[in-house]
Amino acid sequence: MNAAGKVLALCGGVGGAKLAWGLAQALPPEQLTIVVNTGDDFEHLGLHISPDLDTVMYTLAGINNRELGWGIAGETWDCMQALETLGGETWFRLGDKDLATHLLRTQQLAQKKTLTEVTAQLCGKLGIQHRILPMSDDAVRTLVNTNEGELAFQDYFVRQQCKPAACSVRFTGTDTARLSPAVDAALHDPDLRAVIICPSNPLLSIAPILAVPGMTGILQKIAAKIFVVSPLIGGQAIKGPTAKMMQEMSIPTDSGSIAECYAGLLDVLVIDESDKKDAAGLSSAGFSVHACKTLMKTDADKLALAASLLQLI
Amino acid sequence: MNAAGKVLALCGGVGGAKLAWGLAQALPPEQLTIVVNTGDDFEHLGLHISPDLDTVMYTLAGINNRELGWGIAGETWDCMQALETLGGETWFRLGDKDLATHLLRTQQLAQKKTLTEVTAQLCGKLGIQHRILPMSDDAVRTLVNTNEGELAFQDYFVRQQCKPAACSVRFTGTDTARLSPAVDAALHDPDLRAVIICPSNPLLSIAPILAVPGMTGILQKIAAKIFVVSPLIGGQAIKGPTAKMMQEMSIPTDSGSIAECYAGLLDVLVIDESDKKDAAGLSSAGFSVHACKTLMKTDADKLALAASLLQLI
Repeated sequence: MNAAGKVLALCGGVGGAKLAWGLAQALPPEQLTIVVNTGDDFEHLGLHISPDLDTVMYTLAGINNRELGWGIAGETWDCMQALETLGGETWFRLGDKDLATHLLRTQQLAQKKTLTEVTAQLCGKLGIQHRILPMSDDAVRTLVNTNEGELAFQDYFVRQQCKPAACSVRFTGTDTARLSPAVDAALHDPDLRAVIICPSNPLLSIAPILAVPGMTGILQKIAAKIFVVSPLIGGQAIKGPTAKMMQEMSIPTDSGSIAECYAGLLDVLVIDESDKKDAAGLSSAGFSVHACKTLMKTDADKLALAASLLQLI
Repeated sequence: MNAAGKVLALCGGVGGAKLAWGLAQALPPEQLTIVVNTGDDFEHLGLHISPDLDTVMYTLAGINNRELGWGIAGETWDCMQALETLGGETWFRLGDKDLATHLLRTQQLAQKKTLTEVTAQLCGKLGIQHRILPMSDDAVRTLVNTNEGELAFQDYFVRQQCKPAACSVRFTGTDTARLSPAVDAALHDPDLRAVIICPSNPLLSIAPILAVPGMTGILQKIAAKIFVVSPLIGGQAIKGPTAKMMQEMSIPTDSGSIAECYAGLLDVLVIDESDKKDAAGLSSAGFSVHACKTLMKTDADKLALAASLLQLI
């Protein structure tokens, strides 16, 4: 990629954060902006919690908890334990260190700072140099319609551990939400070379970003090429309910379905080398395909996938 | 004291909580109600913090931190440490366990529960059988006028460590605040035998309670005798700024001044045996005096002072 070209990554939680980390190692801060889903955000115990923003922040700061897959490394749980004694809600586990993020964010939002400003402050203090932007400063919330009724995202995802069968997903707030000025500016940056949609759940993590008014229209129009990294490998998601949800919603769990999620947007679908067999079908359906190793188990894997994408760009 | 007689204790933080603990060991739950100052309450990091209520609760639950003199025993500080990294306010130290209390209280207050209800729930979960009541469910706040300007209580007390010289103290909210129904009922209980004003700072801990509209009038009228335990021993306070403030406000730091604080209310002033010399002057000024050991260093001291008071009653 040309040294001046810029990359904008769209991502959700864990899988997306891994690739974002890889890209952040390969690109200088001025060349990479990471736009993060906030459809998972919720108010809990009076705190504004932004799970995907935190996962991306902690991952880029190198303080993410690799054992748990979420939260901060070396976390302690004294507050949760005390809260349990007091009869409080403990289904959403908030570590003692992690609580500081939520307390500060909630306080600053109450002082009328935007989520973008608060995120920038947190990133600055965590030593993160790349820009991490919430998709919007307005509230967009993901609701999952299931066989047990419509559930708020964290209720479905954490409290019920994705067990109810999903029928559909919808977003509230999308009638009034706006892209943040920072996201809008990044999308319209004349140096923007590529948009990478990270291997996050298309229905739960990327769809809310695309649902923010203006987002899809801008992505359709901009000159920058759009690369989608499929979150499926061999029809399975590495983590999370992507494949389970697709099955419940009668969507085939294959590369073709991922391509269909982004029809009209995507320029190149990046699939795992083990799914190379799907390439012919995708090509004949009009999609450009690139196969490489997309499984990211080690830091070397993340760096390799990032390098592979940047070469492609 | 007659087995059916009831006692109501008014108290602030540490010193008051010690005596409240002693009384709670000596009296069954139905015979003791503890009314606590909430003038020190404040909003911090978006949390509703009730320092005196917490000190009394933790003390009665036997989980108070004796080394610090506040907070919970065996406390950890991971959240504060993380908050410091993030550039948050850490001058008011909130332990990880302690945070659970504030989170739950704040959440429940936001759900329109009263502070009395929330306190009852917290006490229930902590295994406290005696009733601990906030003086009011409405906000009464203590402000200290100092040579550095008027300061919110915790700003004066914790952030500035009582260093500015105090000129006067005033309370906001007292035009509209009401005694809680539970406090009102306890004061009007026909079985109420005695009110004990614990050895707390009269200017900062007891004055806010007396400033709640109705409180002083009821205390003046009720048949129950009012016993005041002086917080001064040999002209010094065991803990906190009582003596320093009195000096700054040109109030002699002696038993007579304590009696004057409660003139028109007190029936018996309880002073430390080392201050016995003050008894004659107090008597000639028309105050009834009882001298006994009021210093509470050990649990035995607390039990002994409680027993001494109950005998007097």
